[in-house]
Amino acid sequence: MEVFARSPAATARSAGPLAPVVAVVQSELDQVESSIAQQAAAFDPAIEGYIAYAIGGQGKRLRPLLALLSGGATGGLQPAHVDLAVVLELIHVATLVHDDIMDEAERRRGQPTVNARWGNALSVLLGDCLFAQALNLSANFDKAEISRSIAQAAREVCSGEIIQTQRRFDLHLGIEDYRRIVEMKTGSLFSVAAELGAVLNESEPIVARALKSYGMKIGAAYQIYDDCLDIAGNESIIGKTLGTDLRKGKLTLPVLLLLRSAPTVERERYSRMIVDGKVEELTEILNAKLAGAPLSESISDGQNLIRAAQAELTILPTNIYSEAMHQLGDALLELLDQLRE
Amino acid sequence: MEVFARSPAATARSAGPLAPVVAVVQSELDQVESSIAQQAAAFDPAIEGYIAYAIGGQGKRLRPLLALLSGGATGGLQPAHVDLAVVLELIHVATLVHDDIMDEAERRRGQPTVNARWGNALSVLLGDCLFAQALNLSANFDKAEISRSIAQAAREVCSGEIIQTQRRFDLHLGIEDYRRIVEMKTGSLFSVAAELGAVLNESEPIVARALKSYGMKIGAAYQIYDDCLDIAGNESIIGKTLGTDLRKGKLTLPVLLLLRSAPTVERERYSRMIVDGKVEELTEILNAKLAGAPLSESISDGQNLIRAAQAELTILPTNIYSEAMHQLGDALLELLDQLRE
Repeated sequence: MEVFARSPAATARSAGPLAPVVAVVQSELDQVESSIAQQAAAFDPAIEGYIAYAIGGQGKRLRPLLALLSGGATGGLQPAHVDLAVVLELIHVATLVHDDIMDEAERRRGQPTVNARWGNALSVLLGDCLFAQALNLSANFDKAEISRSIAQAAREVCSGEIIQTQRRFDLHLGIEDYRRIVEMKTGSLFSVAAELGAVLNESEPIVARALKSYGMKIGAAYQIYDDCLDIAGNESIIGKTLGTDLRKGKLTLPVLLLLRSAPTVERERYSRMIVDGKVEELTEILNAKLAGAPLSESISDGQNLIRAAQAELTILPTNIYSEAMHQLGDALLELLDQLRE
Repeated sequence: MEVFARSPAATARSAGPLAPVVAVVQSELDQVESSIAQQAAAFDPAIEGYIAYAIGGQGKRLRPLLALLSGGATGGLQPAHVDLAVVLELIHVATLVHDDIMDEAERRRGQPTVNARWGNALSVLLGDCLFAQALNLSANFDKAEISRSIAQAAREVCSGEIIQTQRRFDLHLGIEDYRRIVEMKTGSLFSVAAELGAVLNESEPIVARALKSYGMKIGAAYQIYDDCLDIAGNESIIGKTLGTDLRKGKLTLPVLLLLRSAPTVERERYSRMIVDGKVEELTEILNAKLAGAPLSESISDGQNLIRAAQAELTILPTNIYSEAMHQLGDALLELLDQLRE
């Protein structure tokens, strides 16, 4: 179906600091990828093409990566780890499709978004279909605990998004509120990926808890990275429009730190700029390369989270997977560092 | 939270021909209602109120009704039947919240819709939350078969909605296409309600299949009734704007029958009226009270489906629940008859 074709430019995804981490579970990630691609076939032929487009976006597949590494680190990879990875990625893609409606986003991963291409009505339903399919697969796990944890994480993601939506342009949003939103909307799925990777191997509860905490911190740090990228990134590299968060009234960590650190008069001026949508001016201020500047402080904050995540890994046996989990932290540290340049 | 209060006018729902059927499982329906109300408490306090508003809409709870009657008819009601009823109703409410976004509907069940009240972004997320919560509860069933069937039905509902959305204003839509859409978007949940009511009682497969078919036919007939109501109903009684389907390009059975039965010249005129959105004129034509007229034929079509559904019940033992299932058919026959007046 020609209409659904994506440009091949979108396929180069495991370059950069993440590449060696990805390599550790490459063959399982390939299985995840082919299983994700097969999901479209579960649908009515009339809608298969839309599903294929939505899931074929060649994301970074970070949640699958976490699920697989965690499985490898805690006793070995089973087919159920691949299934877990697929389910979590489908939920993630479903939320992206819905996010793009709300953000009126035009491009995602270098391609037109589903809503830009086929409108909001279809996007709402397509997200629902993906979500239903994820939970359909999720019912296949032997332990009800697995399905339940996945559904709970999905609920957390949506709840986090609601709170974020409610508090757009809310200049009283505190840094603690931001942390909670980030943990809910991004941390939850990362966290359940790492936790359930261990649960599938019947790991000790203390190990599963440590991995849950690792996933939560890595997820939160990744969201901080993504939020900084929206201010300091390069549009042509990341494949989406910059300044989107500010334009939509999403107050992310650098903005909150700017507001908090500014003297009263300045704070009022910045607040007015946010409300008036002076995104370019604000971005310039946020990009100021000073020590203690909001962007730099946000980057350090994300890096501290990553180090705390890495500290959780001491409970794991040393093997290529647990080392790769540590390395994943290092890769994110490096990505964050690149934003300082 | 005053902002979330609904008017008490919305509570009178079991009047009319359905009342004696509802009475048979009234105490279980009350449990369903209170469990639905409790679902809001599972969410973050910041969003509890929105959830409460969305689920408190006092719908007819037909899917719960089917699940409970089916359970009663096949060996007795267990707490799991109440859980099943709650899960199915939550999925249904989630789809309504999303439908109202796509239809830009202002009122539902006599109250402002979630999107009219809080906008589309929140409505997308709220539907997702309800969906996630439904599948969360669904993971509690002992048999994975139950959760899997529920998730499959949810996927069918969304897929049916997608096909319907794709084919808005499509004057080539056939009556068979319409039937398929109706079975997917409405039949699926009715069908799984009746089927799983029996599966929870470990009924013979032949019984579960008969009930599945009963549910599918009752669901399809109910959708035909709802589609006719949009043309022939009374706005102040049904609590939503009439002619919505036509205005949105949804070609329902009466419209398709009108197009099919008209001579070529007339058909072209009607087609133009559909495309130009001449909803009032079309509604008048559709309401013509002639034998063989499209509305009357649609009503007969729905009534035939109901009789076919009732015929499936012969496999059941005779008890108050199986009789109530038959009576539910009679009540729908009567509701359809009222549209002829």
